[in-house]
Amino acid sequence: MQFKGRTVLAFIILAMFASSILTLTIVNPMSWSFKEKAAGSAVAAGPSSTSTTLTNKDLSKISKTYQLIENQFLSQVDHDKLVNGAINGMLEALDDPYTVYMDQDEAAQFDDSISSSFEGIGAEVSLDDGKVVIVTPIKGSPAEKAGIQSHDMILSVNGEKLDGLTLNQAVMKIRGPKGTQAKLEIVRQGSGDPVQVIVVRDEIDVETVYAEMLPGDIGKIEIRQFSSNTATSFEKELKALESKGMKGLIIDVRNDPGGLLNVVVDIVNPFVASGKAIVQVENRNGQRELTKSTGTGKDYPVTVLVNKGSASASEILAGAFQEAVGSKIVGETSYGKGTVQVTFLKEMGDGSNIKMTVYKWLTPNGNWIHKKGVVPDIAVEQPAYFKAAPLTKKVTLKTDTASDDVKNLQLMLAGLGFTADRSDGYFSEKTAQAVKNFQSVNGLPVTGEVDTVTANKLEKAILAEIRDPKNDLQLKAAAEALQSQINK
Amino acid sequence: MQFKGRTVLAFIILAMFASSILTLTIVNPMSWSFKEKAAGSAVAAGPSSTSTTLTNKDLSKISKTYQLIENQFLSQVDHDKLVNGAINGMLEALDDPYTVYMDQDEAAQFDDSISSSFEGIGAEVSLDDGKVVIVTPIKGSPAEKAGIQSHDMILSVNGEKLDGLTLNQAVMKIRGPKGTQAKLEIVRQGSGDPVQVIVVRDEIDVETVYAEMLPGDIGKIEIRQFSSNTATSFEKELKALESKGMKGLIIDVRNDPGGLLNVVVDIVNPFVASGKAIVQVENRNGQRELTKSTGTGKDYPVTVLVNKGSASASEILAGAFQEAVGSKIVGETSYGKGTVQVTFLKEMGDGSNIKMTVYKWLTPNGNWIHKKGVVPDIAVEQPAYFKAAPLTKKVTLKTDTASDDVKNLQLMLAGLGFTADRSDGYFSEKTAQAVKNFQSVNGLPVTGEVDTVTANKLEKAILAEIRDPKNDLQLKAAAEALQSQINK
Repeated sequence: MQFKGRTVLAFIILAMFASSILTLTIVNPMSWSFKEKAAGSAVAAGPSSTSTTLTNKDLSKISKTYQLIENQFLSQVDHDKLVNGAINGMLEALDDPYTVYMDQDEAAQFDDSISSSFEGIGAEVSLDDGKVVIVTPIKGSPAEKAGIQSHDMILSVNGEKLDGLTLNQAVMKIRGPKGTQAKLEIVRQGSGDPVQVIVVRDEIDVETVYAEMLPGDIGKIEIRQFSSNTATSFEKELKALESKGMKGLIIDVRNDPGGLLNVVVDIVNPFVASGKAIVQVENRNGQRELTKSTGTGKDYPVTVLVNKGSASASEILAGAFQEAVGSKIVGETSYGKGTVQVTFLKEMGDGSNIKMTVYKWLTPNGNWIHKKGVVPDIAVEQPAYFKAAPLTKKVTLKTDTASDDVKNLQLMLAGLGFTADRSDGYFSEKTAQAVKNFQSVNGLPVTGEVDTVTANKLEKAILAEIRDPKNDLQLKAAAEALQSQINK
Repeated sequence: MQFKGRTVLAFIILAMFASSILTLTIVNPMSWSFKEKAAGSAVAAGPSSTSTTLTNKDLSKISKTYQLIENQFLSQVDHDKLVNGAINGMLEALDDPYTVYMDQDEAAQFDDSISSSFEGIGAEVSLDDGKVVIVTPIKGSPAEKAGIQSHDMILSVNGEKLDGLTLNQAVMKIRGPKGTQAKLEIVRQGSGDPVQVIVVRDEIDVETVYAEMLPGDIGKIEIRQFSSNTATSFEKELKALESKGMKGLIIDVRNDPGGLLNVVVDIVNPFVASGKAIVQVENRNGQRELTKSTGTGKDYPVTVLVNKGSASASEILAGAFQEAVGSKIVGETSYGKGTVQVTFLKEMGDGSNIKMTVYKWLTPNGNWIHKKGVVPDIAVEQPAYFKAAPLTKKVTLKTDTASDDVKNLQLMLAGLGFTADRSDGYFSEKTAQAVKNFQSVNGLPVTGEVDTVTANKLEKAILAEIRDPKNDLQLKAAAEALQSQINK
């Protein structure tokens, strides 16, 4: 079986390769981008570079540390592990989660993960305060099917703790051959007891654009990631919708972690009037370059759907539609990643790679949304049960107990129409009655207690609700906003 | 005001200086220790060292990374921060929490902290899976007075997150001038909501030995840390007790994080029959050397009190008394640190320092207690309320709510003799009644609800109970065990 999902990226990145910056240069040639190209080599000149280097004293201190370890430390240590440790240590000193070193294996897998399919669970992860956190599960992926959610923290994979690993090392542990199990120990939203979730790995294909026509001739295009072929797919789907008489368009970038900078520019370009800014890119010296539209604009209204999982290139898109097109942004405040990374595969020269934050990007009006996110014009939350965590299933839940499990149970029951009298995690008599009602409707023994069988049935039912478009309050709001603009 | 507490160490160490190993050599000269001495220089020879070094390719890769950062990274970065990052990165690759790099400032403060007094909160901390965790608060210190406990996790100090810092960097943030406040955000035992605890820093003096005569001519000597002057103080106090006709001795090393290897050997030596092993030290090649007693043994029985905060040198002491003296060990399984660190101040040469794990130590019979601890002959837990966490005081606790705060409230109430009907964190009617009883006895408005005033009174009362020797079940058990040996 092949999933039509988006690729699992090791992290949210805007520019996956140095070439993406060059592509940006093609869209809108800039003087500074040539300078930066030169700066990619080790002895770069130009105003943005310094001539500082490691002195002999520095190198001798690093060597001395190495020798102390080799000669004195209680255990023998692998040579490469120490060299990679030194490089990781320098990058960690930058305190930027988007700047990472990849050893040869990691770099090769990173490379694979961009364009082709690969085998894994199908979720983008990020390193947040040293913890591996889900940015977003890929639609239709094993991770999504297993109920993994944005902001879930992964503690261990098949019993192996992820603490202390780099993001890439953690991703390597999560990935694995199709058909194998990844037993994830997760904590939802940073609180509560860890829960074990078993995900069966599968082949994840890169399919990034999904289009459909909604009632009222409202087109909807969902972009799941900005990969190399995404702009082409988007253009094709857009043309098809336009030829069917589309009166308004919803672009859905919810849970879209980003991708290539040039691709988002290509997608936004036709919607923005010629000469207006799509995005600004600022280098370390504060020099800004505007990428200006070569398009004409469209004669139908557009709304953009965003949520907290919309990051990076998704935010460029939302910011451009908000400020340069005047579209309504609908949903939740987005992730807030306002930096551009460049990779340095050639510079490293031995197959290893460094992905480094090199630029900021700003909205057309010059706003930096980093750690703030794009704020929607129309703020809409999904129903509360969208945030329910799977139950730990350690003990049978029953009357007169209190726990995070009971709180999640009450969220699920409410989402399924079996509302109890409280939602604070205390298992009241009315909670038991709600459980009985659920059990009765679902052909389970009517005990009023939640054992593993009832818990699994509950989780399956709530996942079906979450996946049902009729419960997508954000999509509804976007369609309504569009309709009222069409009717004007 | 001066606290008679033990020094705040950055971590549990056995050998604080390279010299401590030399001192061990004085106690019991060994052939390998001379080899190791030579190995302290950068180009060490001998069977335990290898000739591996950083190649030009390694150094060039490290330099390239440095230059990429300098020339490309979005922000300008401090030169020393990157060099120190490289060194930290190499040491972190060893995955040993006891091996750390100290820059010049940290090394100087570390040096100060051994012998003299310093200003801080008075707690030993350790880095556990990247989190700063209290090993033990020092008796009588501001930290102890504020209710800080072993295994508390510190998230931030005065609003500054400790994530990603080295242990030494974290300690520098916790320390500060006498009279200033350290607002600590802590999580108790790794669970529950963070709590803010305000600790007023003070001068912490090194006073490591406390002796007293208990009823029945049972002497008690508490060792709070094995510092350079501890063996001399211990000898003095021991002589005084012996001259008063002591019939048995309790050595209390609970919450003693360790210290100097030679000092613990000096303390144990008189209790062990001549020629018997006190401790074994094993180098990276598996070569062992026994440190043998030059003492005579004592004609009275000894028991040793340990708990989970007894680490390193404390465990050498407990292991020696258990195996070489035949004493009963009373309390909880100890911390489990079976390695010896050596510092390399001279080798670094620029005022920075590396403290590195170089040896294992083993009990007289050759047991390695690392990550296992010394198991007591008589296991005794303290009363449950010793583990109560301070209340978060975010909301007033009242009937029909459930939270970790309520759980801790119920622990405290039970400890104070106002036992409710449950202890699971659900605020029942009987919990409210217990609160009312407490309020009534303590002259508070009898509301049955726990606001900040009631919470503070409760915490003060429970701390008084914890400090009251009559509640020290472990000490009682040690005295009883000793008494039955004396009566034989």
